[in-house]
Amino acid sequence: MTTKAGLDLATLIADTETEIARLVASTDPATAGVYEQCRYHLGLDGSGSSGKRMRPLLGLLAYASITGTHERALPGAAAVELGHNFSLVHDDIEDGDRERRHRPTLWALHGIPQAINTGDMLFSLSRIALHRLTDLGFSDRTVLRLMRLYDETCVALCEGQYIDMRWSETDRLMSVAEYFDMIGRKTAALISASVEAGALLATEDEGVISRYRAFGWDLGIAFQLNDDLLGIWGAAQATGKEASDLAKHKKTLPVLYALEHGGTEDVDRLRDLQRAVDLTAADVAEAVAILERSGARDYTRDQARRYRDEALAELDAAGVVEPEARARLEEIIRTVISA
Amino acid sequence: MTTKAGLDLATLIADTETEIARLVASTDPATAGVYEQCRYHLGLDGSGSSGKRMRPLLGLLAYASITGTHERALPGAAAVELGHNFSLVHDDIEDGDRERRHRPTLWALHGIPQAINTGDMLFSLSRIALHRLTDLGFSDRTVLRLMRLYDETCVALCEGQYIDMRWSETDRLMSVAEYFDMIGRKTAALISASVEAGALLATEDEGVISRYRAFGWDLGIAFQLNDDLLGIWGAAQATGKEASDLAKHKKTLPVLYALEHGGTEDVDRLRDLQRAVDLTAADVAEAVAILERSGARDYTRDQARRYRDEALAELDAAGVVEPEARARLEEIIRTVISA
Repeated sequence: MTTKAGLDLATLIADTETEIARLVASTDPATAGVYEQCRYHLGLDGSGSSGKRMRPLLGLLAYASITGTHERALPGAAAVELGHNFSLVHDDIEDGDRERRHRPTLWALHGIPQAINTGDMLFSLSRIALHRLTDLGFSDRTVLRLMRLYDETCVALCEGQYIDMRWSETDRLMSVAEYFDMIGRKTAALISASVEAGALLATEDEGVISRYRAFGWDLGIAFQLNDDLLGIWGAAQATGKEASDLAKHKKTLPVLYALEHGGTEDVDRLRDLQRAVDLTAADVAEAVAILERSGARDYTRDQARRYRDEALAELDAAGVVEPEARARLEEIIRTVISA
Repeated sequence: MTTKAGLDLATLIADTETEIARLVASTDPATAGVYEQCRYHLGLDGSGSSGKRMRPLLGLLAYASITGTHERALPGAAAVELGHNFSLVHDDIEDGDRERRHRPTLWALHGIPQAINTGDMLFSLSRIALHRLTDLGFSDRTVLRLMRLYDETCVALCEGQYIDMRWSETDRLMSVAEYFDMIGRKTAALISASVEAGALLATEDEGVISRYRAFGWDLGIAFQLNDDLLGIWGAAQATGKEASDLAKHKKTLPVLYALEHGGTEDVDRLRDLQRAVDLTAADVAEAVAILERSGARDYTRDQARRYRDEALAELDAAGVVEPEARARLEEIIRTVISA
C-alpha cells in the first residue's frame, strides 16, 4: 500500500514541482535569465508563494483514482500547471495587475516586453512537458490525443480571455448566460482538461473519460463561482485587508445577477457605483447590501454548490473511483470551494 | 506533369492561405473579433500586404523536392506561418513598433492587452494546424516527431528573443559570435524547422532529413544577414524612404563588426552616434562611412553569400532533389537573399 500513502497532497505537489523544475532549469548563461523569470513566477525559487497547484492535483488524482498511483501522469500535470501560469503572466499584463500572491508580477519587475516573452516561454515549455509521456511508454496515439485536448483548450482559453476583455471595454453588461459561457472557456476548460488528461492516460474506456471530463467542467464552474463569492464576501474583503471585487469594478456573477434581478432603484444605484472611479468603504457596503437584497449572494452560492454536487455525482457515476483518491479529491474540493 | 505545374510560388501561397483561412474562420459571434484580428494581422482580410510567406514556401518546396507534390505538407506550412506570425504580433509590442508592412500593428489598433491575447491565439492555432496531418493519414509517430521539432523551435525562439531584449537593455555590446548565436535561435531555428518539417513528412531517410535541416539553418542565417545589409544599404534606406537601422539604433552585424574591427577613432565616434537619441541624415551617412571603412559591409555580404552557398550545397548533397522544386527553391533564395 506504499503507493496509496503517496497520494497525500503535499507529495503530489512536491512531485509536480520536481517535474516542472527540470523543464525550467537552465545550463546556458546566455539564456539563464528567462528561465529564472519562469522559476520566479512559478514560485520555484523560494521567493514566495506558488499557488494552490489545483490543476495538477486534480489531474494526478483523476489518474490515481483509476490506477492507484500518480507518477506516470506527472508530465500532464506539469503541462497544465505551466499552461495555467503562462496565462497568468499574460493576464497580469492585460489587467495591469502589479501584484499576485503578495509579490510583484513579472511585468512589474522586468517590464512588459520581457514578461510577454517569458509567458510565451512558459507556453512553449508546457508542450515540451508532454513529450516525456512518450519516454514513459504511453502510445503515440494517446500522447497525440492528449495534445489535441490541450491545444483545443488553449484556443478556448484565448477565446474566453477575448470575451472578458471585450466586455470590459464596453458599457453594455454581460447577461448571466453570457457570463457562464465566458467562464466556461476561461476557467472551466483548463480544469476540465486537467481532469480529462488524467483519465485518458489511465483508461481507454470512453464512458469513463467522458464522466471525468464532465466532473472537471462542473468543478471548474463551481470553483469560479466560489471565487466570485470570496471576491466580495471573503474574510479579507469583509475586513478591508484586500480590495473587494466591487471596488475593482469586476463584473462577476453576483453583480450581473443583481443588475438583472434587482429592483429598479437598486439597479440604477448599482450602475452609478459601477461607473464611479473610486469607491469608498461606505460605497462598497452599499453595493454589497444591494447585491444581497437582489438575492445575488444566495443565487451564486446555490449555483456553486449545485455545480460542485453535480461534479461529484459525475465522478461517482464513472464507477471506477478508488476510495483513497476519492477522499483526496473531496479534500481539494473542500479547500478550493469553501463558500 | 500537372503536379509540377502546380509548384509555382503563387499557387503554393494561395494553397497555404486557404489552409490558414480555415483555421482562423469563426462562426460564433461572441468570439468573432479575435479571429478577425488574426485575419487582419495575417493579411487575409484584404486590408493589405501579407508578407512573403517564405517559411511555408520553403517547407512546401522541401516536401515537393522529395515527393513531387506539395499538398500533403500544407498543415505543416500553415503551422510555421501561424507560429511566425504569433511571434511578430508579440515582437511588435515588445519593440514598440506601430507599423508593419505599411499598416498599423495589432497593438496600435486594439491596444496591448488584446494584441497579447491575439498573439497567444495564433500560437494556439499553429498547433491546431498540425493535427490535420493525422486526418491526412500521416503516422502518429511522424506527427509527434514534427510536434517535438516545432515545440523545441518555439523554445529556441523565446530564448533568442530574450537574448535580443536583454542586450538592448544594457550598454555592453554583443560580440559577433554572440550575435550569430542569437540569430540562430531567433531566425534560423524556425526557418530550419520549416524545411526539416517538409523533409520529415516526405521521407524517413535520416541522412536526407539532416541535410535539409542544415540547408534550412544556413539559409536562415543568410536571410538574416541579408536583412541586416538591406536595413542599412537597401534602396529605401539609401533614398531616405525608410529609416535606416542605424537611425533606429539596431545593433545588427555590420555595426557589431565595425565596433570589433574598426580603427579606434572610428569606434569611438560610432559609439557616440549609437548613444545619440536622434540621428540626422548626415549622422547616418557618417556612420555608414565608418561601417564601410571597417570592412563591415563586405564582411556581412561575404558571410551572407557563404551561408547561402553552403545551404545550396547541403541541398544538393541530399541527392534527392527534384529539378523543378530545386529551381523554385533557388527562385525564393534569389528573392529573399538579394544583397
